[in-house]
Amino acid sequence: MSGEYVPGLEGVPATRSNISFVDGKNGILEYRGIPIEQLAESSTFLETAFLLIFAHLPIKDELLAFEAEILSHRRVKYRIRDMIKSFPEGGRPMVALQACIAALGLFYPISRDMSKEEYAYNSTIRLLSKVPTMVATFHQMRLGNDPIPPRDDLGHAGNFLYMLTGREPDPRAARIFDVCLMLHAEHTVNASTFSALVTASTLADPYTVITSAAGTLSGPLHGGANEEVIRMLKDIGTIERVRPYIEERLARKERIMGVGHRVYKVKDPRAKILQNLAQELFDRFGHSRLYDIALEVERVCDELLGHRGIYPNVDFYSGLVYEKLGIPSDLFTPVFAISRVAGWLAHWHEQLTDNRIFRPSQVYTGTRQVEYTPLSLRSYA
Amino acid sequence: MSGEYVPGLEGVPATRSNISFVDGKNGILEYRGIPIEQLAESSTFLETAFLLIFAHLPIKDELLAFEAEILSHRRVKYRIRDMIKSFPEGGRPMVALQACIAALGLFYPISRDMSKEEYAYNSTIRLLSKVPTMVATFHQMRLGNDPIPPRDDLGHAGNFLYMLTGREPDPRAARIFDVCLMLHAEHTVNASTFSALVTASTLADPYTVITSAAGTLSGPLHGGANEEVIRMLKDIGTIERVRPYIEERLARKERIMGVGHRVYKVKDPRAKILQNLAQELFDRFGHSRLYDIALEVERVCDELLGHRGIYPNVDFYSGLVYEKLGIPSDLFTPVFAISRVAGWLAHWHEQLTDNRIFRPSQVYTGTRQVEYTPLSLRSYA
Repeated sequence: MSGEYVPGLEGVPATRSNISFVDGKNGILEYRGIPIEQLAESSTFLETAFLLIFAHLPIKDELLAFEAEILSHRRVKYRIRDMIKSFPEGGRPMVALQACIAALGLFYPISRDMSKEEYAYNSTIRLLSKVPTMVATFHQMRLGNDPIPPRDDLGHAGNFLYMLTGREPDPRAARIFDVCLMLHAEHTVNASTFSALVTASTLADPYTVITSAAGTLSGPLHGGANEEVIRMLKDIGTIERVRPYIEERLARKERIMGVGHRVYKVKDPRAKILQNLAQELFDRFGHSRLYDIALEVERVCDELLGHRGIYPNVDFYSGLVYEKLGIPSDLFTPVFAISRVAGWLAHWHEQLTDNRIFRPSQVYTGTRQVEYTPLSLRSYA
Repeated sequence: MSGEYVPGLEGVPATRSNISFVDGKNGILEYRGIPIEQLAESSTFLETAFLLIFAHLPIKDELLAFEAEILSHRRVKYRIRDMIKSFPEGGRPMVALQACIAALGLFYPISRDMSKEEYAYNSTIRLLSKVPTMVATFHQMRLGNDPIPPRDDLGHAGNFLYMLTGREPDPRAARIFDVCLMLHAEHTVNASTFSALVTASTLADPYTVITSAAGTLSGPLHGGANEEVIRMLKDIGTIERVRPYIEERLARKERIMGVGHRVYKVKDPRAKILQNLAQELFDRFGHSRLYDIALEVERVCDELLGHRGIYPNVDFYSGLVYEKLGIPSDLFTPVFAISRVAGWLAHWHEQLTDNRIFRPSQVYTGTRQVEYTPLSLRSYA
């Protein structure tokens, strides 16, 4: 046994990685060394996904080929649609997505004439391109609608919004959503990424790896915070009720959804970017009551908590942005998956370069050498 | 950061547990303190599952209620059959199972009028009862057959064999299969169980937890060893070729499938039990060429390796038994899941009693503060 038992393995190094770097004290997030601010300013989600997965910024031909591959794999097989048709309409979208990702693996196994590298590339393309389509397909079908086929003249982010809403999004709105996808694409080894590593370590196929990660993300302690932010803002209901709501929560030492972050002790760099994007979005397309309530939450939290280094986080603003873009709040976590699949795939690729199966130990706390008691001799303890 | 980086977290304690105990040096395996030999002798798979999950042997009324519940939930919804109908016939059964388990969660979410305890019990029942049915259903449907509905007059093991083959199994064969399910039900924190813990730690639902575990089991480094044993025995082909085959592998320092175990340095207690059951099965229902080859492998390995503490392991004999019971070898890992779901559920229950989200750290090995290069200025490195 190596070392003491640390609950949740908090701070216990579980991997060597050069995918992303976080410095919570100084508010730094880098993907492959590049500060997130620069990527948000100049990159796109697909370029960033390439960077995360293949460890370098693509040159022009690589990027064009990558984008063209993704574009050409957006459609899903009719059998996947049939499968979704068999899902209950009221089912949780995140569970539906997880089942769809698992089933993808049935259609795309490795074949004998394919090298491991080819298979890894092909699976990467398929997962990046089909996850958004499957989310939108389930959404349309649960409404009783035919799924909306992807449109080849729209980019990755814009096409998703189109498939989801049936309306071609404003280009600036699509760009803002693309930045959101970039910002959520990777964040070192959290629980979902860790489960991807554990599953990957048995050499399970990439669809299985991403199924584990998506499943782990579905837990309320992990994904879902931005959904709860919207619920909170709706609960608060009016600007006047913001201050008493927050003061009451603080007095009861309860968390305020979307405020504060486990890692970042200064403002999360992603939150800063999203705050500006949210403002632009609402200025351009009209304020909502929810946004005005959110601005007041921000003001009150800054006043009451800012000195303690507690600020609205990335979930606070992403919830607002997604709501404004017309994304139903129960799809926020699937949208997180559409983005984070890039990071999960990057970690999957990295795990395979230096793999060891995960086999931690346990501290046994039970009894030993107990006698089996026959049924007739048992009684309540 | 706590401690050094240990690849695969080998030997790093990841949980406190009182579910099972393994002592590889002395060949001991206990479930809740009870030696596996006693359980194999006197218990049943369902009683053992109850023991693992609820931490005590059931009294008579508990056991009857538990068995009745399992019996009444064996059927799967027609929507699950529709879903399986949309799967490609050639798809890997383990992937199909994983997608089915994920989809189960769509049908059985927690409802407002249900306590967490009720939900945990209901999900436990459903997973134990429906996993075998889903495995058999996929198998029949990939053959183009209608799925065979479960038969209420057959026990857990016998009913599975019936649904799988369409024939009512000999009671002794069913009992031997039931013992196999018991022997594989739990084995501390291996990769699949660990992934269940990681997923469970975000409070993801139990179907999601078991989906992760099943996915992790599907990796060739984890499940699948007994399938490879059968492949090896078929490869060897004749008794005469056993010795040269093994000597050649040893000379090339290659592994012999189903021989040796990472943990057990004496003979795995499960292997001893299975060896006897295999012998009984073949004596009773007729030897096969494969079994005679296996006996010779055993003899040669004992002669050449026995002094080094290397013996045929549990996978060696389980492959033989499953083959003899008429289970296709690509269903061996799904059969493992039918059994291990008991252990995974036990760990899920235990995780929730003292939960902390898994958030290990990483050793960052990448570069820092890299400048984003615009596309037009990039070139091959």
